[in-house]
Amino acid sequence: VNPPSPPRETRRTVEIRQAILRKNDAHAARLRQMFRQRGIHVVNLLSSPGSGKTMLLQRTLTDLADRIPCAVVVGDLATDNDARRLRASGVPVHQITTGTVCHLEANMIEQAVAEMDLRDVRLLFVENVGNLVCPAVYDLGEEGRFVLMSVCEGEDKPLKYPRIFKTADAVLLTKMDLADAVGFDHSTAMRILAEVAPDAEVLEVSARTGMGMEAWYDRLLKLTASP
Amino acid sequence: VNPPSPPRETRRTVEIRQAILRKNDAHAARLRQMFRQRGIHVVNLLSSPGSGKTMLLQRTLTDLADRIPCAVVVGDLATDNDARRLRASGVPVHQITTGTVCHLEANMIEQAVAEMDLRDVRLLFVENVGNLVCPAVYDLGEEGRFVLMSVCEGEDKPLKYPRIFKTADAVLLTKMDLADAVGFDHSTAMRILAEVAPDAEVLEVSARTGMGMEAWYDRLLKLTASP
Repeated sequence: VNPPSPPRETRRTVEIRQAILRKNDAHAARLRQMFRQRGIHVVNLLSSPGSGKTMLLQRTLTDLADRIPCAVVVGDLATDNDARRLRASGVPVHQITTGTVCHLEANMIEQAVAEMDLRDVRLLFVENVGNLVCPAVYDLGEEGRFVLMSVCEGEDKPLKYPRIFKTADAVLLTKMDLADAVGFDHSTAMRILAEVAPDAEVLEVSARTGMGMEAWYDRLLKLTASP
Repeated sequence: VNPPSPPRETRRTVEIRQAILRKNDAHAARLRQMFRQRGIHVVNLLSSPGSGKTMLLQRTLTDLADRIPCAVVVGDLATDNDARRLRASGVPVHQITTGTVCHLEANMIEQAVAEMDLRDVRLLFVENVGNLVCPAVYDLGEEGRFVLMSVCEGEDKPLKYPRIFKTADAVLLTKMDLADAVGFDHSTAMRILAEVAPDAEVLEVSARTGMGMEAWYDRLLKLTASP
């Protein structure tokens, strides 16, 4: 059953939203060009709240720091908790606090980058606001788009939030060390991912035990090896 | 760090969004009056994707069905999977498919209710779209606003998504049977909830083992016992 036909304000919002998305797309295209010129490879990390984006990044920064210079831009509605957690790694970290805005936009990334020293950085992670809906439609000028799905969330999320999974370059199944405890149905999850996002690579990881992390690093290093 | 000063389209979107919220509030007030006149108590269930809203409802409907007549309206971007799961309980279930809309609105509830037979129903559950941001600001005419947070998501979510927790009548800590496996820090979670949402009750439940479910049912029956 579809929602009722939208009232006038909703139609106007849709029009303005489309204008904002067009403007964001143009902004993201300029950002992408700038990152390419500076040799910075940008990765957009997207997921539900609590899927383990920050934990994945903490371990990634620790393990990759001596292989490739990294930096992070992290978005949240409130608090700089994630930035504080990530700064322990020693890499440059910039927190964006969005207030009520439920996603990051290209202009926020541009301003963040302008305030960071990225001279030697080759790999820039953007940790998006935890949300499987709205961040999906905002291009941030990234080169790789990675969607995390923890085994605790159930196998059906790609069916219920198709846009974000369809646009993913790879899907990271996180918290794999908990798969047995939560009764994660691996074959169902893989069947659903193959149906919704047939071109996305699937990486199975646990930032806690380290399982699958080397394959994730290889994926990142492959990205940064491209011109 | 705050996001950059908003461009013109963003300002216009904010204005229109405020108009939509005012209209939604008026709509919700009419709905609330209608529900009161018909003796229907409405519960809005909100959470991240995968926090266990549907699982909680499945068990609740099974256990409560012979104590009080229930019905469900469930919202998702795509699929009627949740409605199919919930219909097994035998209660009336109506699926709203929102497409790209990241939350339910009062007019969607009104249309859903118009298509349901609620003559004997006393308790209507609304399972919102899985999202900790946008659903927080849309009043659906509910009498009780319950926010779920699974122990798998980490303890800090109320700090990072304050609005939805601040407006909750109660917070349900779900998947409590997994607390030890995921290393859930109970005292930190309670401290953060007391800080962000001091007036919200906290209910600890596991729909899998049944832990805490009777207290949840008591809370619902207390709601329906009010005039």
